[in-house]
Amino acid sequence: MAKIMGFPATSQDDYQLNVTNIMQHAARSFGRQEIVSRQLDGTMFHYTYKDAYQRMQRLAGGLITIDVHVGDRVGVLAWNSHENYEIYFGLPGMGAVMLLLNLRLSPQDLSYVVNHAGARFIIVDQTLLPIAEAIAPLCETVEGWVIITRPGNTLSDVKTTLAKVYAYEEVLGQAAPTYAWPTMDERSAYAACYTTGTTGKPKGIYYSHRDVYLHSCAMSLSAEMTLQDTYCQVVPMFHALGWGLAKAATLVGARLVFPGMYTLETLDALSQLMINEHVTVSAGAPAIFMPLLEYIRGLEEKPDLTGARLFSGATEPPVAMMKGFWDLTGAEIIHAYGATETSPLVTINRLKPWLERELTEDQKWDLKRKQGFCVVGLDIKVVDALGQEVPADGETPGEVLIRGPWITGRYHDAPGSEAQFTEDGYWKSGDVGTLDAEGYLKITDRLKDVIKSGGEWISSVDMENEIMSHPDVLEAAVVGVAHPKWQERPLALVILRDDAIGKIGDEDIRAHLSKTFAKWQLPDKVLFVDQIPKTSVGKIDKKVIRAEHKGAYGG
Amino acid sequence: MAKIMGFPATSQDDYQLNVTNIMQHAARSFGRQEIVSRQLDGTMFHYTYKDAYQRMQRLAGGLITIDVHVGDRVGVLAWNSHENYEIYFGLPGMGAVMLLLNLRLSPQDLSYVVNHAGARFIIVDQTLLPIAEAIAPLCETVEGWVIITRPGNTLSDVKTTLAKVYAYEEVLGQAAPTYAWPTMDERSAYAACYTTGTTGKPKGIYYSHRDVYLHSCAMSLSAEMTLQDTYCQVVPMFHALGWGLAKAATLVGARLVFPGMYTLETLDALSQLMINEHVTVSAGAPAIFMPLLEYIRGLEEKPDLTGARLFSGATEPPVAMMKGFWDLTGAEIIHAYGATETSPLVTINRLKPWLERELTEDQKWDLKRKQGFCVVGLDIKVVDALGQEVPADGETPGEVLIRGPWITGRYHDAPGSEAQFTEDGYWKSGDVGTLDAEGYLKITDRLKDVIKSGGEWISSVDMENEIMSHPDVLEAAVVGVAHPKWQERPLALVILRDDAIGKIGDEDIRAHLSKTFAKWQLPDKVLFVDQIPKTSVGKIDKKVIRAEHKGAYGG
Repeated sequence: MAKIMGFPATSQDDYQLNVTNIMQHAARSFGRQEIVSRQLDGTMFHYTYKDAYQRMQRLAGGLITIDVHVGDRVGVLAWNSHENYEIYFGLPGMGAVMLLLNLRLSPQDLSYVVNHAGARFIIVDQTLLPIAEAIAPLCETVEGWVIITRPGNTLSDVKTTLAKVYAYEEVLGQAAPTYAWPTMDERSAYAACYTTGTTGKPKGIYYSHRDVYLHSCAMSLSAEMTLQDTYCQVVPMFHALGWGLAKAATLVGARLVFPGMYTLETLDALSQLMINEHVTVSAGAPAIFMPLLEYIRGLEEKPDLTGARLFSGATEPPVAMMKGFWDLTGAEIIHAYGATETSPLVTINRLKPWLERELTEDQKWDLKRKQGFCVVGLDIKVVDALGQEVPADGETPGEVLIRGPWITGRYHDAPGSEAQFTEDGYWKSGDVGTLDAEGYLKITDRLKDVIKSGGEWISSVDMENEIMSHPDVLEAAVVGVAHPKWQERPLALVILRDDAIGKIGDEDIRAHLSKTFAKWQLPDKVLFVDQIPKTSVGKIDKKVIRAEHKGAYGG
Repeated sequence: MAKIMGFPATSQDDYQLNVTNIMQHAARSFGRQEIVSRQLDGTMFHYTYKDAYQRMQRLAGGLITIDVHVGDRVGVLAWNSHENYEIYFGLPGMGAVMLLLNLRLSPQDLSYVVNHAGARFIIVDQTLLPIAEAIAPLCETVEGWVIITRPGNTLSDVKTTLAKVYAYEEVLGQAAPTYAWPTMDERSAYAACYTTGTTGKPKGIYYSHRDVYLHSCAMSLSAEMTLQDTYCQVVPMFHALGWGLAKAATLVGARLVFPGMYTLETLDALSQLMINEHVTVSAGAPAIFMPLLEYIRGLEEKPDLTGARLFSGATEPPVAMMKGFWDLTGAEIIHAYGATETSPLVTINRLKPWLERELTEDQKWDLKRKQGFCVVGLDIKVVDALGQEVPADGETPGEVLIRGPWITGRYHDAPGSEAQFTEDGYWKSGDVGTLDAEGYLKITDRLKDVIKSGGEWISSVDMENEIMSHPDVLEAAVVGVAHPKWQERPLALVILRDDAIGKIGDEDIRAHLSKTFAKWQLPDKVLFVDQIPKTSVGKIDKKVIRAEHKGAYGG
């Protein structure tokens, strides 16, 4: 964006926005605030912001003694522990870049990320050594490993094939409890995350200190967090900066709870932790909140979570889940939207006071399914294939473009990725959605899955959901198939319930759809099948379906 | 501050923080939110963020048609009206600098400010034309005047001696309802305020867009304002950016109430407006809140203001006033601290959860008198005469130094003012205070009024308050007087109640003081007088007292 210089100001505009300042503030103003962390053996570790801040300073000093320099990339393979929280501030505070490593990636992808980033060191939790050992032979730039050992363990208790290892506690122990943080140029990278796109290699986002500082302010404001809140870090801290709430909570001095290591198989313990610690703010995907709700349903005495805000991301939260939390516990599920490229907060769903008065209860629940309105500080537009803004009518879909201080402006060292950005500086999200007159965004599809028919777009996800609302349908998938006249036309795959097979025909499905879809939008072909192709993580594999049916309409 | 560049980030760090973005956000996300303004005739004007935003765009476009350019300084002489709110965004949005003019200054000081700033235009409320006409002959750079006329009036209804006048409504009317805001370099000046120091000429602070944007975020966070709040603009909008809450309220989409023209003589109407409009957030000095409390005391039915936060600045709020609001209405008075040089938020007094549990009721009220803890984003230190930080023991006084993105780094075109800044970039506030272990600041004195005795400081304000707590004392003033051995020693002037005259001696006063002051701190001389010199605004005139008694200790 071309900028214009006006009259010079007298403000301290050279003062750099550094993420470390957030923690420094928390330690000085909320030093006695509690941080709670669940350890591997299930016992709870307690300390304060002041204690944590001292250990962050020790970490910064200790990293220097093992030869970490300003600008170095240092990988982190860790659970949601208090040590990881210390790393979040201490590591970038001394000027290095915290490279967040997704421990669910394959060794090939993980080592690709490490090599692409050129990481010199990796901090790894003792329980994750098998992953580290698997990637070590593939990592060309790593010179040393810092191991967060189990409580009570020292380096001599650790059996590993890794060469040049240090113990996290010893790195801290050999450094002073105070550290003179450098003033980092606010454009310096604070951390890096890599996307896990299904196509192509992971791409690197390097978040600046300025980015993360401003995002933390916006997140605290949007989540309406205060000193009175207790925040629990449920989102894996290696996912898109852990969604940013830990830093936002620190900024306002909230009490912090870290669940340590948890997996989808140990969610009961996580659920009980959240109840025991009186958590008032958390964030996660429906995949976490659904089992949490089930756990609560099973409790004799339901916990009172009145006033709690649970931010739900990744995908649209089911209304039944939102109602379940509200009715059983008083907790509110709040949908928010973002991506690794956006630090990640872009929109958040809050009910406006006038809508509170005007809408029926059902309308309010329906509204809560939307991704919400854009937060302060960002620009958002929804555009058609020609880049023109679509009407804000809640109906016309377009691709979501986003711009602002915490949106990535490029991918690190990724030739060819420039096409993901517009000339006026917007990042193209690849998500298709609508904006309504109140500014609420609703994501309807991925751009690559939307069906482009005769210059108009048809949402494959909406059509799938509508087909699945038919009582005789078990599952459905809709894709766009090339068409000689209309560019693409929808094709539906449908799995019927056993007792409906042979009784339901394609006209029944079309008739059902025509209640909510226009005639021109109805699928030309409805194929009844036994199985729908899925990806390794259980999502409908539209790439495979499109390939299988590519000639169906002669396009 | 020397900054270090780390690894380059991919974030959109060139995206400029512009104050206009706050309003743009409010219009898109909270377009239907209400803005209420009290007009001169007592009737209420209602419109929305969306309406206001359109008029701001018309104002920006209109200013260009009357030949205002990017970088021009444009003065504003106006009440707390919705037009002034429009000016707050529309004027700096097009790249000019909003020069806030204190309508209580003398024509000499006011014209000094206008000339020093080199303002080319002045926007003036019709009711304030006498002030404009008084300064016009003294203003060398002003080429035109834009008059905000009374409702229903046009320019032909206005009788004025001013040359080259425009009507605000006509300037808006001739412009388009949309305006393509320029992207201002975030270091460009958004607005300017001048200090009204008792010594020397007013000094100019030119706040950058970056400054005001970051301050607005910090203010919204600190005030815990949300979309559900109704904010009333009581602080005059020409005082230190109106203390910043209007922009902070806009940022979160709160409902806004503007009281229009009010004076200390019309506070009943203001009080009733705040009750009628269900205000939940406001800010002002005790001079405003005291009469508001008196008004409420006089009401048959007390309003329920539960949850309301009234931010009190300028001076320490009396405990009786804070208790009065709490007991009668449920509203909380919250002390905050800042200055024209600090945009102005520096500290805010919130009770921490652990203090809520640990302190007695009396201790909590006492704590509420302190200025509070430093907000996120700023550095603060309290230093002795040698520039060394004093212990954070709540007792050792020092000068308060402040640094950060919304603190001024210099005064505009003011040779010799460099001494107000330290080498490491702190602004010297001239306020003396203590920091306690919890980080709460307490201002005890102005640096120029503190008594420097034998290398230690004695608070003149604390001593005055203590003398005045003696049942026979009506009023007291304490100053430092030069002393050959101790540099300075305290001297007290005391006015006794009529029936105590002749019965109370200096030893009685010293005995009373020795309950809370050390022996070496007691005043060497206590003089009983009939009158204490005052300034034109009713403050104790210590300059005059010091001059009258300068030889008292032979220094």
